[in-house]
Amino acid sequence: MFIQNCWYVAGWDHEVGADNLFSRTICGKRILLWRDANGDVHGFDDRCCHRGAPLSCGRKEGDSVRCMYHGFLYDASGACIEIPGQDRIPPKAGVRKYPVVQSHRWIWIWMGDPERADPALIPDTHWLDDPDWACTPPGYLHYDVNYQLINDNLLDFSHLSYVHPTTLGGSEEYAQLRSQIERLDRGLRITRWFMDRPPAPFVAKLLEAKGMTGNVDRWNNYDFLLPGVLIMDSGFAPAGSGAEKGQRKDAIEFRHCQVLTPETENSTHYFFAQPRNFDKDKPEVSEGLFKSILTAFEEDRVIITAQANNLEPGFEPVPCGLDSALAQFRALIAKQIDKERQEGLGQPVVFSAAPGHHMGM
Amino acid sequence: MFIQNCWYVAGWDHEVGADNLFSRTICGKRILLWRDANGDVHGFDDRCCHRGAPLSCGRKEGDSVRCMYHGFLYDASGACIEIPGQDRIPPKAGVRKYPVVQSHRWIWIWMGDPERADPALIPDTHWLDDPDWACTPPGYLHYDVNYQLINDNLLDFSHLSYVHPTTLGGSEEYAQLRSQIERLDRGLRITRWFMDRPPAPFVAKLLEAKGMTGNVDRWNNYDFLLPGVLIMDSGFAPAGSGAEKGQRKDAIEFRHCQVLTPETENSTHYFFAQPRNFDKDKPEVSEGLFKSILTAFEEDRVIITAQANNLEPGFEPVPCGLDSALAQFRALIAKQIDKERQEGLGQPVVFSAAPGHHMGM
Amino acid sequence: MFIQNCWYVAGWDHEVGADNLFSRTICGKRILLWRDANGDVHGFDDRCCHRGAPLSCGRKEGDSVRCMYHGFLYDASGACIEIPGQDRIPPKAGVRKYPVVQSHRWIWIWMGDPERADPALIPDTHWLDDPDWACTPPGYLHYDVNYQLINDNLLDFSHLSYVHPTTLGGSEEYAQLRSQIERLDRGLRITRWFMDRPPAPFVAKLLEAKGMTGNVDRWNNYDFLLPGVLIMDSGFAPAGSGAEKGQRKDAIEFRHCQVLTPETENSTHYFFAQPRNFDKDKPEVSEGLFKSILTAFEEDRVIITAQANNLEPGFEPVPCGLDSALAQFRALIAKQIDKERQEGLGQPVVFSAAPGHHMGM
Repeated sequence: MFIQNCWYVAGWDHEVGADNLFSRTICGKRILLWRDANGDVHGFDDRCCHRGAPLSCGRKEGDSVRCMYHGFLYDASGACIEIPGQDRIPPKAGVRKYPVVQSHRWIWIWMGDPERADPALIPDTHWLDDPDWACTPPGYLHYDVNYQLINDNLLDFSHLSYVHPTTLGGSEEYAQLRSQIERLDRGLRITRWFMDRPPAPFVAKLLEAKGMTGNVDRWNNYDFLLPGVLIMDSGFAPAGSGAEKGQRKDAIEFRHCQVLTPETENSTHYFFAQPRNFDKDKPEVSEGLFKSILTAFEEDRVIITAQANNLEPGFEPVPCGLDSALAQFRALIAKQIDKERQEGLGQPVVFSAAPGHHMGM
Repeated sequence: MFIQNCWYVAGWDHEVGADNLFSRTICGKRILLWRDANGDVHGFDDRCCHRGAPLSCGRKEGDSVRCMYHGFLYDASGACIEIPGQDRIPPKAGVRKYPVVQSHRWIWIWMGDPERADPALIPDTHWLDDPDWACTPPGYLHYDVNYQLINDNLLDFSHLSYVHPTTLGGSEEYAQLRSQIERLDRGLRITRWFMDRPPAPFVAKLLEAKGMTGNVDRWNNYDFLLPGVLIMDSGFAPAGSGAEKGQRKDAIEFRHCQVLTPETENSTHYFFAQPRNFDKDKPEVSEGLFKSILTAFEEDRVIITAQANNLEPGFEPVPCGLDSALAQFRALIAKQIDKERQEGLGQPVVFSAAPGHHMGM
Repeated sequence: MFIQNCWYVAGWDHEVGADNLFSRTICGKRILLWRDANGDVHGFDDRCCHRGAPLSCGRKEGDSVRCMYHGFLYDASGACIEIPGQDRIPPKAGVRKYPVVQSHRWIWIWMGDPERADPALIPDTHWLDDPDWACTPPGYLHYDVNYQLINDNLLDFSHLSYVHPTTLGGSEEYAQLRSQIERLDRGLRITRWFMDRPPAPFVAKLLEAKGMTGNVDRWNNYDFLLPGVLIMDSGFAPAGSGAEKGQRKDAIEFRHCQVLTPETENSTHYFFAQPRNFDKDKPEVSEGLFKSILTAFEEDRVIITAQANNLEPGFEPVPCGLDSALAQFRALIAKQIDKERQEGLGQPVVFSAAPGHHMGM
């Protein structure tokens, strides 16, 4: 079960080019993403209404897409506008079209009721293409686990001490900290300050190069929004320089943007990038940070995949103080899914096929 | 569900040699095919009645087959005639034997009631070994889809324009044509004439070599028979030469023979060859045609497999004029399966094992 | 379904070293095996009670094991003794601990009620490390079949003639023999004498080197114990030398030790070694015998795996005289499982987690 009425990241903008027909499974549905002549992105069910062949195996013809099995042609609204050898097009011939918005390098898709697809609900990730910030290359990882296990991970940073001791983490003292947690309308705000300690391994050299050789104050303050969107203000400043009071003159700052999009119940797309406010003209810093992140995120993937494969039906975790944020967020998701179920949110269908013969499958 | 009372192609004659014990799964059952000293082919359940080991892992001993786990020996009727260390053979010890007929290079097997296994129902494919015709090498492809999706493909040649534009197809006009469809006793007769057009890519050079450089008349006329047998008269003649009235003096003609045999509900054996009436002494033409066919059939396999993987429960295809033949043939299959179900066609068993202890599996 | 109240071999002693955290699935449960500073082996559920990560991905800290996801620390009793950032440990925080005993190179584990875990029930395999015997290297094979199919194989040596004609077997006369079968408290005693015949292929050269060039008397006398433990006295002596009456002066003798431990319903661990009373100082004889055994056991694995894949629901084997021992042993297992079911043997749990939120899996 997935939340339907929310925006999911379907891909990076460059994945859907001027010429390709891009297919990705989102919340269990195969979605075709393609651009019309204007450059606008469209999201369709990736399944010809005729015999079910993938439209992504088809051909773009101007602002239309043709299925290359028997030649059905669809316009940008998803309506079928040509069937070889016949003049009459059945009124229901067409494919479902999803609301899609491109915003700051990400392509967002709304899987639920199109009437409610309010672009104002798309989280702000402007740092990804803001010229005042420099950004790592676009990141993507594929997970063979349910997305909520990755949410869990991102909602409790105490794991940095154990999963990432030589990358993002450092001292085990960091795990002793408790974050502050605040409820937002569609998520949580998490605040975590770690004062007057040696810097994390992945930034130690960067700080050294800036003459910051002593202890630092570190912060990881983020909003975590439905269904799994992390927007984080994090950074390092000389210990005692007042970063927690807004004094960030000597600080280095990041604005991590990370999103989890369920592929299926047991697999997940993970998109991420790490904008920063320093060394903006140094691509080698972007590359170095990207490498550090990939190494660390792979550490997460190993332990989370091991965890997922290790769970068995009926396993009841022993709760503890570390779980406060993840427990709250799981409750938020469950509540939202439950609400949608009660509203009887079926699959809104733009074009519904006439009942025909059933294909032996 | 499969039709039981019909002949399926189990293999090419050369696959069951003088010495090997050949195993193939047909309609979900593992079948052992083997030849006795006379060269006659026999079809058994490939499972020793003792502990279930495959007889195809066994040893041929003259006109008998021995299981090489504990030594049970079976004669050509499927009866067990020897059990090591004991004189008495339980009367029910034996394996089910299926009616099998070798005919024109194909080995046909009857999966249903042996009483009804009438060899006269085997389709005529004499072109496969008729000395008046030359034939490509024997063709085989394995599909990971239900056989009805391949039937569908073969019952609507409009796909040639989109799936095979550079091989079997050519102009998209071909897809505009409607075939004539006629009901037969156990199938459909399909007639399709495409007049006064450039030839299909795969024969263009062959025709050129014969001085046929202009437009041609093309026909694809075939019987499609239960469960999935295509016997086609196809060819190319100079435009206006009267091929449609039987004038075939200057024509090149083919007699495609293609059969689909379900392996399981989700996989299929595809046997095919293409006899022709020209260039009979040129093996390089056989090879060239075979290569073209393989390339084209692989194009089919790609799109049909993509289609099969793309279907989801509840998908209702939007029917259109192109589907007339495939819809009729699916109805024929459904009717036949329904009829057999009403007749209570179980699995006729020649030897039935005594109720014994159940093997923990 | 598996017998719970019995000892299973969990591994060879060297597999659980001083430093590693060793994980193996036994009867469907992932088990962590590890040694404390004393060298004593402990068996835990390999699943942190917090969020289910494998403890085998963790870190040993003296006589404790730490989960390396969020840092929970467990002592040798399985009790959680540390949770980062909080002083109070929930009383139920901990993992289930299993009785484990190391005995003569094998590590045995008791999967059922710990109260009944009587070390006196562990079969004697002292030949594995008895200085009066020489032993092959420790053997291990993994099977993708239910363990009872391998039990079946070991309980009927007539298969030696068909599965192992060039290794363990030899003449087909061997399959004509019937073994003597005697009931034991927790198994069967099987006696099989094969008199005055050429030796089996795998020992022919060894006997020749000892001047035994004529016919031999051969015996395979073994206890086969729940759940699948074979302890065999086997050997070869000059024909007529009286080995069957205890005269073994000129004989070569083996004490095979073989055990089957279910991994899951459809996979099995197979541990084995072959002690002998001759050529004790010749490692090349150990290596040669080991190679012969591996070749022969691989022959078994091929046919048993083919058999397992060939069984279908409802297959009813035709019983015969060869099956006497295996039928009795299957009945013993069924009876024991049934008895445990009636006793309501659940999973005895040392630490049971408080009902918490359910992890979406």
